[in-house]
Amino acid sequence: MKIDGQPYRTIFPDADGVSVQVIDQTRLPFAFELKRLGSMHDAAVAIRTMVVRGAPLIGVAAAYGLALGLAEDASDAGIERAVAFLAETRPTAINLRWALDRVAAKLRTVPISERAAFAFAEAGHIAEEDVESCHAIGMHGAKILCEIHARTGRTVNVLTHCNAGWLATVDWGTALAPIYVAHDAGVPVHVFVDETRPRNQGAALTAFELNAHGVPHTVIADNAGGHLMQHGRIDICIVGSDRTTASGDVCNKIGTYLKALAASDNRVPFYAALPFSTIDWTLDDGVAQIPIEERDGREVSHLTGRLPDGAFATIEVVSPGSPVANPAFDVTPARLVTGIITERGVATASADGLLSLYPERRAAA
Amino acid sequence: MKIDGQPYRTIFPDADGVSVQVIDQTRLPFAFELKRLGSMHDAAVAIRTMVVRGAPLIGVAAAYGLALGLAEDASDAGIERAVAFLAETRPTAINLRWALDRVAAKLRTVPISERAAFAFAEAGHIAEEDVESCHAIGMHGAKILCEIHARTGRTVNVLTHCNAGWLATVDWGTALAPIYVAHDAGVPVHVFVDETRPRNQGAALTAFELNAHGVPHTVIADNAGGHLMQHGRIDICIVGSDRTTASGDVCNKIGTYLKALAASDNRVPFYAALPFSTIDWTLDDGVAQIPIEERDGREVSHLTGRLPDGAFATIEVVSPGSPVANPAFDVTPARLVTGIITERGVATASADGLLSLYPERRAAA
Repeated sequence: MKIDGQPYRTIFPDADGVSVQVIDQTRLPFAFELKRLGSMHDAAVAIRTMVVRGAPLIGVAAAYGLALGLAEDASDAGIERAVAFLAETRPTAINLRWALDRVAAKLRTVPISERAAFAFAEAGHIAEEDVESCHAIGMHGAKILCEIHARTGRTVNVLTHCNAGWLATVDWGTALAPIYVAHDAGVPVHVFVDETRPRNQGAALTAFELNAHGVPHTVIADNAGGHLMQHGRIDICIVGSDRTTASGDVCNKIGTYLKALAASDNRVPFYAALPFSTIDWTLDDGVAQIPIEERDGREVSHLTGRLPDGAFATIEVVSPGSPVANPAFDVTPARLVTGIITERGVATASADGLLSLYPERRAAA
Repeated sequence: MKIDGQPYRTIFPDADGVSVQVIDQTRLPFAFELKRLGSMHDAAVAIRTMVVRGAPLIGVAAAYGLALGLAEDASDAGIERAVAFLAETRPTAINLRWALDRVAAKLRTVPISERAAFAFAEAGHIAEEDVESCHAIGMHGAKILCEIHARTGRTVNVLTHCNAGWLATVDWGTALAPIYVAHDAGVPVHVFVDETRPRNQGAALTAFELNAHGVPHTVIADNAGGHLMQHGRIDICIVGSDRTTASGDVCNKIGTYLKALAASDNRVPFYAALPFSTIDWTLDDGVAQIPIEERDGREVSHLTGRLPDGAFATIEVVSPGSPVANPAFDVTPARLVTGIITERGVATASADGLLSLYPERRAAA
């Protein structure tokens, strides 16, 4: 999407043809800087230190990292070492492992001298596929926004939680893709952005990317969404997902469930937008089956931001000596989800709904 | 309640008999300091700068401020000037005006030479009444916690939002009073404390006072409560209220409604604890009738806390250039409220329920 009028992707080949450029997300939202990754080591550091973040983007960055590693050693042993090294950077990221395995599997049949170039091109294919998938989600979701606008004749107010935008992918994003497609098509859209405590990805990243692309938006505390829905100020909620069960239960950033409850209580449609790879076909009860990561309490008790002089500082905001708990995700039961938007279309949040989009899974189920 | 084993109130007469001491709440949770108010001017500054905050406490502080003002000029004109001056410090605080009017009305019949001492004593009476009212709320609410403990045989997990503790009153608090009474009686209680963005009164004040009194507790992001309820980790929610309709709709800090929805969805009892003075007998539809204060967006975009070196700093955490909205309260419809705990007992959140506690209002209704 655009930053100050110029189109960007979160990761793209450098003009030199042998390295890649990424947007340094650790500097956002206060500074926009590109970072050149010239080696496998650079890519690993970028993933580990969250210069790049978001499951799809991490996968692409790892694939490029593998290509950069093969420029040094393209032997079978070199591939294995590179895959193992890169897989360690974010051990729980499923897309990362999937991207590495996909490139590695194809490399076996490629002559050693051509492997680095082949892997570089393959990483580019993965990036393109991600862009196409996100754009398709955007096209399907935008229809819903258009319908609301056609019905009401006024600006469509969307609420979103966390950052499921283009910064988490290569371009377009998932939950934000319908918003970008609709906005670019001239549909008047305004987004209420949950700040998304404790890591504030909404206030920092979603607000940054909407602002940079020129989409009208307003940042709110996570506590405010229910009140806005009670007063008719939200037309639709769209969130992303980290894992969705075959039955349509949506695991997403902590607090998503509270917004789904408010949406249901106020008859506001609530959608999750996600690619095929997010669906875990082995699960059918999200609350019971999906383990929820408990993260460091310091994410709640301390915040980092910008001082008046422009320097960064970390401050303590919880009463000293008080214990802190920090569950990172929650599960929104399918009964609260109006629909699931994927690259194939929009389905009800149910086994039948998801299988209607992915009939090839019906035999497997 | 206690701080490091020593009993305190938020406001109390100084040993000199002519001034009052208050806990300086602007220094909490990082420093515990008392401040002496020796003049009406001192009291006005303390109220305006939120050295004292919380409706009941502000009322008592204003009453003492009036007494201090009369020490300088106890004429009828002096009373009027003092009331007008103090009423300006927090124009929307109903308790403040009520306390000033109560003291002023009684003063008319008191000889001028005795007025300052009379007002000082009257401020003390208002403080005592507040303590008694909060303690009664605590006794009624503690019964509910005892019943849960008797049924489950384990620690009672309470979730609370914002600060409706003793720091907002003279002692005991409202939502926290049942917790203190139960804890002091040996009932095992643990409190999940919502940090309560944007002003973080939970993380700063509720956590401080529970920690200081020795009540086990855990601070969580506002987003986390629904997830905890889904997993059976909350036995009861107790919140305060800024205004409650005659029909039982509870207006309280923004985000309260989201917790009430989660409680309802998970069959967790949800109570509001409040004194008689909080009930607005003229209203019967909280969502439609209660105006919600929209506060400065800077409360969302900037946070103040403690740097590693102990100094305080204010940092910016929202993407620069993004608009911010900051509604301060929301309304929880009576249908989501299990019961209302007042100094008279526990009632259902309904006109009949509240009138059963306040039958003298039945004629008025």
